[in-house]
Amino acid sequence: MDLPILKQGQKRVVIIGAGFGGIRLAQRLSPKLFQVILIDRNNYHQFQPLLYQVATSGLEPSSISFPLRKIFQDNKNVFIRIAEAQKIDRESQLVHTSIGDIPYDYLVLAQGATTNYFNNMRIQEHAYPMKSVSESLLLRNTLLQNYEKSLIAQTNEEKEALLNVVIVGGGPTGVELAGAIAEMKKNILPKDYSEINFKQMKICLIEASPRLLGALSEKSAERVRNYLTKLDVEVLTDTSVIDYDGTTVVLNNGDKLVSNCLIWAAGVKGFSFEGMPEQVQAPNGRLKVNGFNQLEGNENIFVIGDAAIMSSPSLPKGHPQVAPVAIQQATLLAKNLECIVKSQPMESFEYHDKGSMATVGRNKAVAEIGKIRLTGFFAWLTWMAVHLMSIIGVKNRLVVLLNWMWQYFTYDQSLRLIIKAEEKKIAGNTSKNTAGMPV
Amino acid sequence: MDLPILKQGQKRVVIIGAGFGGIRLAQRLSPKLFQVILIDRNNYHQFQPLLYQVATSGLEPSSISFPLRKIFQDNKNVFIRIAEAQKIDRESQLVHTSIGDIPYDYLVLAQGATTNYFNNMRIQEHAYPMKSVSESLLLRNTLLQNYEKSLIAQTNEEKEALLNVVIVGGGPTGVELAGAIAEMKKNILPKDYSEINFKQMKICLIEASPRLLGALSEKSAERVRNYLTKLDVEVLTDTSVIDYDGTTVVLNNGDKLVSNCLIWAAGVKGFSFEGMPEQVQAPNGRLKVNGFNQLEGNENIFVIGDAAIMSSPSLPKGHPQVAPVAIQQATLLAKNLECIVKSQPMESFEYHDKGSMATVGRNKAVAEIGKIRLTGFFAWLTWMAVHLMSIIGVKNRLVVLLNWMWQYFTYDQSLRLIIKAEEKKIAGNTSKNTAGMPV
Repeated sequence: MDLPILKQGQKRVVIIGAGFGGIRLAQRLSPKLFQVILIDRNNYHQFQPLLYQVATSGLEPSSISFPLRKIFQDNKNVFIRIAEAQKIDRESQLVHTSIGDIPYDYLVLAQGATTNYFNNMRIQEHAYPMKSVSESLLLRNTLLQNYEKSLIAQTNEEKEALLNVVIVGGGPTGVELAGAIAEMKKNILPKDYSEINFKQMKICLIEASPRLLGALSEKSAERVRNYLTKLDVEVLTDTSVIDYDGTTVVLNNGDKLVSNCLIWAAGVKGFSFEGMPEQVQAPNGRLKVNGFNQLEGNENIFVIGDAAIMSSPSLPKGHPQVAPVAIQQATLLAKNLECIVKSQPMESFEYHDKGSMATVGRNKAVAEIGKIRLTGFFAWLTWMAVHLMSIIGVKNRLVVLLNWMWQYFTYDQSLRLIIKAEEKKIAGNTSKNTAGMPV
Repeated sequence: MDLPILKQGQKRVVIIGAGFGGIRLAQRLSPKLFQVILIDRNNYHQFQPLLYQVATSGLEPSSISFPLRKIFQDNKNVFIRIAEAQKIDRESQLVHTSIGDIPYDYLVLAQGATTNYFNNMRIQEHAYPMKSVSESLLLRNTLLQNYEKSLIAQTNEEKEALLNVVIVGGGPTGVELAGAIAEMKKNILPKDYSEINFKQMKICLIEASPRLLGALSEKSAERVRNYLTKLDVEVLTDTSVIDYDGTTVVLNNGDKLVSNCLIWAAGVKGFSFEGMPEQVQAPNGRLKVNGFNQLEGNENIFVIGDAAIMSSPSLPKGHPQVAPVAIQQATLLAKNLECIVKSQPMESFEYHDKGSMATVGRNKAVAEIGKIRLTGFFAWLTWMAVHLMSIIGVKNRLVVLLNWMWQYFTYDQSLRLIIKAEEKKIAGNTSKNTAGMPV
């Protein structure tokens, strides 16, 4: 493949994945020392913490997606290729991609994590994941289409299955989704569908462990449970889903729920590429790295963020798979790569945990930042401020803020659109619109 | 199908199509006298005049799409069904749709028009139309993917075909598209793709008649041609496309152009449903109506807007297929339907032409309103004001205005995202995400 020629003294760093880690690293690498090839299957960075608002018609995809080429317009050493990485040839130092081979001096794997169905293929086939903008749009379209379908359902059981929503996973994603859907049910849906009795609609949040929000204190988790219960969400803890056929949800206690929309937010796992040695792969799919995020036994390959597991005696399960870890690792790796080419010693990673938070909806949230614990309105404001500041692009921040204010005062978003791009199906032609892969 | 029971004294009006005409009519029909069933294949109204800005990454689909259920939240007599109308059974007064049969007392066809390829199947197969939000998104994705592909093209010919854009049709749509793509080429693309030489990219606008913008004066058309030429758009009048295979555009003068993206804005035609008598169908697919928009020979069926042709000796080709005609016919039909049930005489339609306008881009437009002719900056401001006021929803107006201001001052939109909703492919399950049809 045509790649720009390396300038004198430059090494080529190939980064796979334009998530929080990949973007930060590409921004921080010295233009003098490094040419950066950033590979992603999408031409945009997605702000995952707000995906649930895309799924619930609260925000547009464009508000939380940012074109990679726009982010790097001023970084003359960063080159973008929209491609799917397939195989790593460590011997020849090549990444095989869907658009050709890309040689590297240093390779950084920042591909993130994917939905973990814990090997239950039936659930994987029928449940809705929510790890990308595309998946969130599918979920939005499904929720809206199900209400339309319920209008013409023949039986009461069919109607209930179309209205009910079951969310699996009591982490921030599950909690925030449950809250947003409950607010839709309360404030918007009865106005949109005067023909439907929304008292029939049940929202159920299922968590396998004894309580919600494992990363927060028990007190905050209890508060969130109360918020959800008040919004009429049924919260089942110590419960797991063992089967799902698209309509009937079977729980481990033998109970059954009926829903055409099971949202799976129960866990993530790492994923890797062909050509990675077996001994570096942890059971949950993450790749084992040392304290410098260096892949075990491979000096010029690094893994950061959700895809990496940096375990230590004090931290046998590695760091949590959250954005701040990826960003902090990327920031340090930019320095460490410079140390390598300058033959200076590297610095090892230490995570600075800034806290955790989750929102249930209007005026309802919990936040724990260091020793400070907030609930209710102030936690909700903090949650909004932190998320707004983390979004890339001044205009995106403005648009999200405008949307939130609009929603706050009018209780109504008007983004309930079932839109998808037309597809052009031409035999033997490449113009088919695929989800980001241009070839 | 389950439909709400008619209240005493109510007749049921079934409207097919939620475009400018259908929406206006549904809003104006008296709740006392009429129950309205509004059928559309999408759950939103689309503001067609700005589709070209969606296609060129200037606006989001949601800015020019408005959920039908939101529009009619306060109209208690209007009921919405997302469905595809298939056949009209005039004898039994039934509309057969993809979700079941709907009986009517009065039927109003407001389905609009579709792209007219003038029976050239090869062009239809390979060209890109732009008559809906979905098609505009396909066009946007195609344009962006073609730049990505050009980065990895093997030959110079391949590269040129990927960069060049050919637009067929010199009406407002073609002119506005050509201007918007030319501005992208000038202001945005070189910053996004430092590796591509955009001097290689050609934009060509082709019109079969001797001049652009047939609805405007010769002087305005000439001005627009100058604007386009200054923006480096090649304008070919008296020229038509006779063949296209996805790469080579063959012109009627024998010349050939090379482009992977041919946009077809050369004409529209009416379309109808099974069960309509042959004698009411005009050659261009429109349905023949009398001065009350009544389908010839069918007292309780009406056709309004682009789908209708109301010809008279002074107007043998009927009215132009533009939004104001549809809106004015809908407004009058609301009154006339009331006249019918009250056994009063109907009023016949007379079109009040408020003028025409087209914009080429920043500070460049022409407008003719009555005897007033504007060009340049003032025409451009007028164009923006008229379009802003016509968009449904205060928030949509705000968002569009914010986008336009942002674009004006920064020259950069940051909406260049190749996004499509994921699809869930489950054998035997109905949860597949289709373009609006929930069943």
